[in-house]
Amino acid sequence: MQLALSSSTTTVTVEAAERLGFVDLTPLLEREVALAGDGFAIVFSRHTTCALVVNELEDGARRDLKARLDHLFPPSIYYAHDDLTIRTQNLQEGERANGHAHVAQMLMGGTSHTIPIANGELMLGRWQRLLLVELDEPKPREVVFRVYPA
Amino acid sequence: MQLALSSSTTTVTVEAAERLGFVDLTPLLEREVALAGDGFAIVFSRHTTCALVVNELEDGARRDLKARLDHLFPPSIYYAHDDLTIRTQNLQEGERANGHAHVAQMLMGGTSHTIPIANGELMLGRWQRLLLVELDEPKPREVVFRVYPA
Amino acid sequence: MQLALSSSTTTVTVEAAERLGFVDLTPLLEREVALAGDGFAIVFSRHTTCALVVNELEDGARRDLKARLDHLFPPSIYYAHDDLTIRTQNLQEGERANGHAHVAQMLMGGTSHTIPIANGELMLGRWQRLLLVELDEPKPREVVFRVYPA
Repeated sequence: MQLALSSSTTTVTVEAAERLGFVDLTPLLEREVALAGDGFAIVFSRHTTCALVVNELEDGARRDLKARLDHLFPPSIYYAHDDLTIRTQNLQEGERANGHAHVAQMLMGGTSHTIPIANGELMLGRWQRLLLVELDEPKPREVVFRVYPA
Repeated sequence: MQLALSSSTTTVTVEAAERLGFVDLTPLLEREVALAGDGFAIVFSRHTTCALVVNELEDGARRDLKARLDHLFPPSIYYAHDDLTIRTQNLQEGERANGHAHVAQMLMGGTSHTIPIANGELMLGRWQRLLLVELDEPKPREVVFRVYPA
Repeated sequence: MQLALSSSTTTVTVEAAERLGFVDLTPLLEREVALAGDGFAIVFSRHTTCALVVNELEDGARRDLKARLDHLFPPSIYYAHDDLTIRTQNLQEGERANGHAHVAQMLMGGTSHTIPIANGELMLGRWQRLLLVELDEPKPREVVFRVYPA
């Protein structure tokens, strides 16, 4: 069967409870794909200090990720991004000390995912959930869902 | 030229020979895109403890990745995901101690890739291969190939 | 509104100024999507030792990423990929000692991104830029932009 595209776009705004908290976006995305038949969803984070991961929603795994990120990207060490004695670019009122979160995001990636849809359902495996991981202090985060039926 | 979409979907099941073994998915995907003209392929892993990477298939690079992952995400340290004295969520018979693999996957990403196709060939560079990296003990893994000609 | 796909493809070639230098690809991609209405762009790196990240273009953040990568994937340690006493695969004239860059790319990912387009503009957040990060010594790098209007 051949179908022309007619995409839909939804931007959701969510906020984690704490630094390195998870927000489960799966139910929000499931709602958007229910009418999509066999298609795909693009999910896109509009931010530089949070990440989208597809993994299990389990408190222990979240604590483990927090422990590893704090070990690999310690908030306590020097970050040039946070050094206001030398920084000249992109400065704004109330600039946060979030250099560790920028570096973690660059290494983690997680700006976009593309998820196939079959019969109006995301083709996720048994334990997979679409999670927003807040790498900075909590604030409202916009995630774009663009759904293509086909 | 304008073409309507008529996608095809294939799910392949593969199994690595060992933890941190690679499975080269490139030939399997190449077979699916041969008739796609100029389109794109979505590749999607349905798992939380393995990753899809696009890199060189070379034994030394694989050993190097293994050494770095074992250094950055040591299987021997404490993971709350594996602590059955506190865990309450998503428990199942024969639960594996794979907290290190969950954390590595969340940091590596590698759940999905989108690869352009030209003239029925993946637009991979000279050394690029689509590889499944097993982060846990080997087991059968499902990878979805969704191909869009256009 | 339903539209059939008519994609366009552009391959750009760029070169960073130094190892762990950034190249801002955003203006190059913006030029390609201006006529795309509401669609999406696939960006795909054809290389195994550089990465595409979507993050802030700020000199401090770049220095921080360099410092962390050099810490997590030290160029000075042993890499089997660079050990010409054992290596047999994919050898070529003038082989570079770039095992650290392969491992960093496998962990960072960043081979492809999918970015939604609205009204001919990338749906990037305020600070997001599409950046090529050179993990190896500088050389010409090909990045494919495949744009789908719809």
